[in-house]
Amino acid sequence: MGEALREQIEKIVSLTDNEFEKVLSHFNLKHFSKHQFILQADSLVMSNYFIIKGLIKSFYVDEAGKEHILNFAMDNYWITDLEAFQYRKEARLNIYCIENCKTLSITYDRLEALCDNMPKMQYYFRKKADYDQALLNKRILCLITNNATDRYHDLMVHSPELVNRVPKTMIASYLGVSRETLSRMILQRM
Amino acid sequence: MGEALREQIEKIVSLTDNEFEKVLSHFNLKHFSKHQFILQADSLVMSNYFIIKGLIKSFYVDEAGKEHILNFAMDNYWITDLEAFQYRKEARLNIYCIENCKTLSITYDRLEALCDNMPKMQYYFRKKADYDQALLNKRILCLITNNATDRYHDLMVHSPELVNRVPKTMIASYLGVSRETLSRMILQRM
Repeated sequence: MGEALREQIEKIVSLTDNEFEKVLSHFNLKHFSKHQFILQADSLVMSNYFIIKGLIKSFYVDEAGKEHILNFAMDNYWITDLEAFQYRKEARLNIYCIENCKTLSITYDRLEALCDNMPKMQYYFRKKADYDQALLNKRILCLITNNATDRYHDLMVHSPELVNRVPKTMIASYLGVSRETLSRMILQRM
Repeated sequence: MGEALREQIEKIVSLTDNEFEKVLSHFNLKHFSKHQFILQADSLVMSNYFIIKGLIKSFYVDEAGKEHILNFAMDNYWITDLEAFQYRKEARLNIYCIENCKTLSITYDRLEALCDNMPKMQYYFRKKADYDQALLNKRILCLITNNATDRYHDLMVHSPELVNRVPKTMIASYLGVSRETLSRMILQRM
């Protein structure tokens, strides 16, 4: 059940079978259906989710009711409202299943306990956070240079499967361009 | 010399005098003059810098030669090209001193050794990375909702001193608005 999680962790740190059993005991298996919300804005954020299988979007709805897609996540990604999770407060984001999803969830307290008890996992989560930070910085650079073509190119290079699975209207919304502009970008790459 | 660094670390984890001495021994004191580059694009990124005193901007220069400000950092902030630092590759960013700067720098290898040898510091850097990630996500949300007024408001709330110290033309560039639009925002807040 947890093989996908183990594979991700072992990209950074190797674990014995016993160690991985201990890690896994901190998680809960949770299924969500297509169109179901894992998290809704203004609710308390209890868990961080490792996606074994599925496709998810996180988005923010502004005061005018407009939806802004922050992220997509699929097999082997983690997703939550990170700020709310860290500070144990209400979410600003909505997290919604585009496909049926099978996840391993971990609460804030269980994650802290896991790190306290297993130095290897403290190391894993530090390195993971560092790599994720580098990706976020890259995304900010793409956003401030305001280059939708580069953003699309980055998506294609780093997540080609995601681009194929996510409906094109959502990809356009994520890139901040119209559906027509995205079609032109796709044609240019062919 | 390292009191500012100790104060920042102790916001997350407490250290004995001996422990802090050990931490400090992993850093080097470095001074930079106003207008000096700490890092230039295409050079190898050797260190992460904790700023004891000073004011710094990190920016990216696009192919057309246009400068895009990614971040400002001042007293008690850390700065580097995080992606290049993590992967020990060439920088995409430039890091430039707006004021004279006094820093404590740590190399990648020394930081890893520090975390290996002191579980408290592994914990510190994990939590710091998590908090920083939450801030980056918040910044991305501001950027994709494309709301310069909110971005300015966030800066004023979280870094009022920074807003006072950084030249207004740089703040405008950071927010992605013209100098005139920024003046209107400032007037609206009075």
